[in-house]
This record gives sequence, structure tokens and C-alpha cells, in this order.
Amino acid sequence: MKHYTIEEVKSWDRFYRGNFINSISGFKSVSLIGTVDQDNNANLAIFSNIVHLGADPALIGFINRPREASPHTLANIESTHCYTINHIQEEFVEKAHQTSAKYDSKESEFDKTGLTPLWTDDSKAPYVKESKVRYALELQEIIPLKKNNTFLVVGSLKDIYVPKVAVQPDGFVDLSSVGTLTSLGLDGYYKTSLLSRYSYAKPNLQPARLDN
Amino acid sequence: MKHYTIEEVKSWDRFYRGNFINSISGFKSVSLIGTVDQDNNANLAIFSNIVHLGADPALIGFINRPREASPHTLANIESTHCYTINHIQEEFVEKAHQTSAKYDSKESEFDKTGLTPLWTDDSKAPYVKESKVRYALELQEIIPLKKNNTFLVVGSLKDIYVPKVAVQPDGFVDLSSVGTLTSLGLDGYYKTSLLSRYSYAKPNLQPARLDN
Repeated sequence: MKHYTIEEVKSWDRFYRGNFINSISGFKSVSLIGTVDQDNNANLAIFSNIVHLGADPALIGFINRPREASPHTLANIESTHCYTINHIQEEFVEKAHQTSAKYDSKESEFDKTGLTPLWTDDSKAPYVKESKVRYALELQEIIPLKKNNTFLVVGSLKDIYVPKVAVQPDGFVDLSSVGTLTSLGLDGYYKTSLLSRYSYAKPNLQPARLDN
Repeated sequence: MKHYTIEEVKSWDRFYRGNFINSISGFKSVSLIGTVDQDNNANLAIFSNIVHLGADPALIGFINRPREASPHTLANIESTHCYTINHIQEEFVEKAHQTSAKYDSKESEFDKTGLTPLWTDDSKAPYVKESKVRYALELQEIIPLKKNNTFLVVGSLKDIYVPKVAVQPDGFVDLSSVGTLTSLGLDGYYKTSLLSRYSYAKPNLQPARLDN
């Protein structure tokens, strides 16, 4: 086991340090966020720091980098209050990664990468047609983080599209069964396989494995 | 593809709804957070909503549920400003899950589950000896989320322990190679396998696969 101090980490060049720090917090919920501006120009961008905030009300958050580094998605959400989050599967992971390139605000990452916008009656913002799990959110709050000028964007869940076969009898959605990927660091994409589910933990009781 | 509206989701019983909503945001960075109170009583609890906030300064956040639902870790961090985050591997996943049982504040989850506290000179809070990737943080900010009384706890990275073999030549840490798990929903634990890494994306250039 190697011990690194933060002083040592700070001495590294920024690419090495970025790769290291971005990996160390663990696997992430990488997804594509679809938005539109006020003129209905579509935007699509990859985000990996997505967090479950609560089930009742159903709230999901994501971290947006400082405004100058990642302006379009945030500006569109502020303007329209509406966005979609679309899981990434192996079939289009390369196109999904390519959305992180710095395109001009008037260029659509859908056009540039070959992903297909899916317009529906329920959402002003487009979904990604290729994605097997997708959901729409309505903006609730944008919370600035003083320490590094990032933002926690909080949205409430509105509509969800998921293959019925992935939804288990108790409501658990086995994302592995539909090929949703997880990411690591800035550029690593991983497949997953179920190890186990465990029963609700109680003191003085061993957790039981739930059969799937 | 099945379309669920939020009205339908709200009509479900709370366990079904909790399982569903907790899964839909994707795979999570599940880890064990180690803390101490002012009398050095150790506490250990499992958290799955951990997010990378930035590499420079190196900041990592986690979502703490409302205070009444999950009081001990938050109170200890407020009191000592120090905590450790420890990745979970298959060898002790059942013990890790068991830390989510509601033990009394004076009972140590280390004693109750059989996990081993590792005390070091660099951190007041204990690490988990069984964990193959662990790091210590210093509290920077606790941000309340108005919408549901949860908290985003922001910490700065201080010390990191990781097997050197997992650190690649460019600083990327391949957590799959040391068996770090990812979680889904409230109770699902998954293994991962690397699909690919891609080069930094630029407009008009196809991303290249990075060899590993």
C-alpha cells in the first residue's frame, strides 16, 4: 500500500494529478445531459458526477464545473428549467465521450457525434434515442460551491423511460441487465456485473442475500 | 421501453418507489466513512452518494441524509473536521452493508461488524484496515439542501492509500484491478471490468482508445 500526502499530489503535473484525483473517489454515474436554449437549439454533454439526493420528493443532482469551463448546459437549464439525463451503453460510448469536445454553443453535439435527438411531448429538452434508460428533470435549485466555483444542480424527476425487463418485482432497476456503463476518472468506461443484493440491515441480524 | 410519469411513481408504496428512484440515477461510489466523536469513539457508516468536486484544489463531496435519519457521521465531522473514506471490496461487502443498521451512537460499527479500525498518525479518524483504497479528508463546508433537508458535505483531500500496482503511468487509478465495488440502489453491489479509456476529445477528431 502506497501512502500519498496531499503535498506530494500537489507537486504532480496537472494531467497526472487530474487523472489520479478523478479516479480516487470511485465509480461514477456517467450520463449524457440533453438541453435546449431559448431558440430550441439542442445541446448534449457528458457528465459523470450525478447523485441521488432523495426518493420523496424524487431529486437528482449533478455537479457542473465552473461556468467558464462548461457553460452551455448550465445556461440552457437556467433558461428553460428542463433537461434530460440519458444513460450510456457500450454501443455508443465513443460518441458519448466525443460530446466532451469543446464545440461552439451554436453547434449541436447531436449533429457532431451522430447521436439522435428524441423529441417527446413530455420534455422540451431532447432525449438521446440510442440510450436505453433516460429521464427528464425540472430544475429546482442551483447551489454554488464557494471553494471551487462549481455548482450542484438539483432537479426533480418528471418522466422516466426504462425497459420493463430491467425493473425487478421490488422496484429495483438492474441497470447491468441493459448495459448501462459506469465511469472512472476522466476517460475510463466500465461494464458491471451484479455481485449481490442484501436485505435491509438491522442490528443483531446478519444481512441476507437477496436472490435475483 | 416503458414510460413512467412522476405521478405514477408517486402512487407506488415507499419501498418500491425507493428502490426504483435510488436505481435510476445510475451506479454509485459506495464507500465506508470512518469518524470519531470528541471522546474518540469510532463510528463507521456506508455512504453511496460520493462525488468528485474538483482536482485543484482536490475536493470530494458526499450527500448526508436528513440529520434525524443519519446523525452520527455528520455530528462527528462537525465536531472533529476529520473523516476517512474507504472503498469496499468483495471480501467484506457483507460487513460493509451491515454498518447501515441503526446502532446506538455509543456502539462502534467496527465492533459490531468485525471490521478493523486502522489508526494512523495522519488522521484522527480511523481508516478501515480491510479496505484496499482509502483516503482522509478535512471538512471544508456543509451545504444544506433546502428541498429535502439533506446535506452536501465538502472535504479537501489530505492523505491517500492505494496499491501502487493500481496507479497507471498517467496517474489513472484502475479501481477494478483492486476489486473496488460500485453500488446501485439501496442494496445492490456490482463488480466492474474495464471496457475502454478514450483520449481527450477534440472537435473534428475521433477519440482514440487508450491502451491499458
